[in-house]
Amino acid sequence: MITRRLPVGVLASGRGSNLQALIDHIEAGRLDAEIRVVVSDVKDAQALERARRHGIDACYIDPGPRRTILTAEAEERYVQCMRDHGVELIALAGFMRILKERFLAAHAGRILNIHPALLPSFPGLQAQRQAFEYGVKVSGCTVHFVDAGIDTGPIIIQASVPVRDDDTVASLSERILEEEHRIYAEAIQLFAEGRLRVEGRRVIIEGPRVEG
Amino acid sequence: MITRRLPVGVLASGRGSNLQALIDHIEAGRLDAEIRVVVSDVKDAQALERARRHGIDACYIDPGPRRTILTAEAEERYVQCMRDHGVELIALAGFMRILKERFLAAHAGRILNIHPALLPSFPGLQAQRQAFEYGVKVSGCTVHFVDAGIDTGPIIIQASVPVRDDDTVASLSERILEEEHRIYAEAIQLFAEGRLRVEGRRVIIEGPRVEG
Repeated sequence: MITRRLPVGVLASGRGSNLQALIDHIEAGRLDAEIRVVVSDVKDAQALERARRHGIDACYIDPGPRRTILTAEAEERYVQCMRDHGVELIALAGFMRILKERFLAAHAGRILNIHPALLPSFPGLQAQRQAFEYGVKVSGCTVHFVDAGIDTGPIIIQASVPVRDDDTVASLSERILEEEHRIYAEAIQLFAEGRLRVEGRRVIIEGPRVEG
Repeated sequence: MITRRLPVGVLASGRGSNLQALIDHIEAGRLDAEIRVVVSDVKDAQALERARRHGIDACYIDPGPRRTILTAEAEERYVQCMRDHGVELIALAGFMRILKERFLAAHAGRILNIHPALLPSFPGLQAQRQAFEYGVKVSGCTVHFVDAGIDTGPIIIQASVPVRDDDTVASLSERILEEEHRIYAEAIQLFAEGRLRVEGRRVIIEGPRVEG
């Protein structure tokens, strides 16, 4: 039997460390997915470079003049690109713009994001710094479906990470990142296996339980 | 050498399960504290009954006519009661009223609370239900210093608890409660040992590290 590989499109704005983790999981045979294309709103994003190095299509698509969102025209170009690559799941990996109606509607229930905090604590930017400065003793990361809010969609997996007295924002971020790499691949694998069922705000994992 | 026992006053409104856990830890010799008095704003609170059963002074003190706070006169009576019992630390254990200026000022830096969620997520009432309905995959509990906000003070210890697909609010609450019982005693022991240092919003634990 040949396992079908889920066609994934990745949106990234930065260095693409989560992208790299997905690539590694796929190449190690632990994730039944295929990254068809990596798109960035930043022309020289390191994520694009990483994609090319692994033979993955890598596109910069002009986001338009707005700072925090894509213009409607830009969203249309992003949607078209996903369509052209036969993408069935969008994985945000450090994509720094808020997706709006056009993109969300075109991929309803098929967009995932990884956030470096235990949502609903510390949504938005610099979540690790927010957590550190608040003084929490437990932080972590969250994979969730993307909806129209900022980091508000139904949660698929969370992993907790201790905050230590001698931590800095950097050391905490590093420890959280390791867990991000693990749970993002896990969540995409569950999606690929068709095991995620959304009931209101709760995401139920069907079949044998996977611990977060 | 005779270990000095920290004199503690407990405020409780309900069944007092966290009070019972503290009593058990003390009686088992794991917590160098002595509960001098349990005070309730509810005349027939089970917590008062528990206290009496263990030979601890138990007082109902009329909270006054307001629903969510103590009146200033009532706060004065609570403060006086703590003073009369030589209390050096106040432990809130399911106390359902918000403490105001008079009480806070009289016990600055000497009031702890246990909250059944990973703050700053889900402050306020019915935190376990809030977490369950939000659909988080990790919840937990928090011991924190009490300040003038609702569940906003500096965090001493947090423990994480997984949320399972087959959980109910009751089963989740039960699992969180076990951790509450553990970390509340741990935090009070650290306070008794003089090992908690507050730096801005962060609480540093001095001496050998204790994992939350």
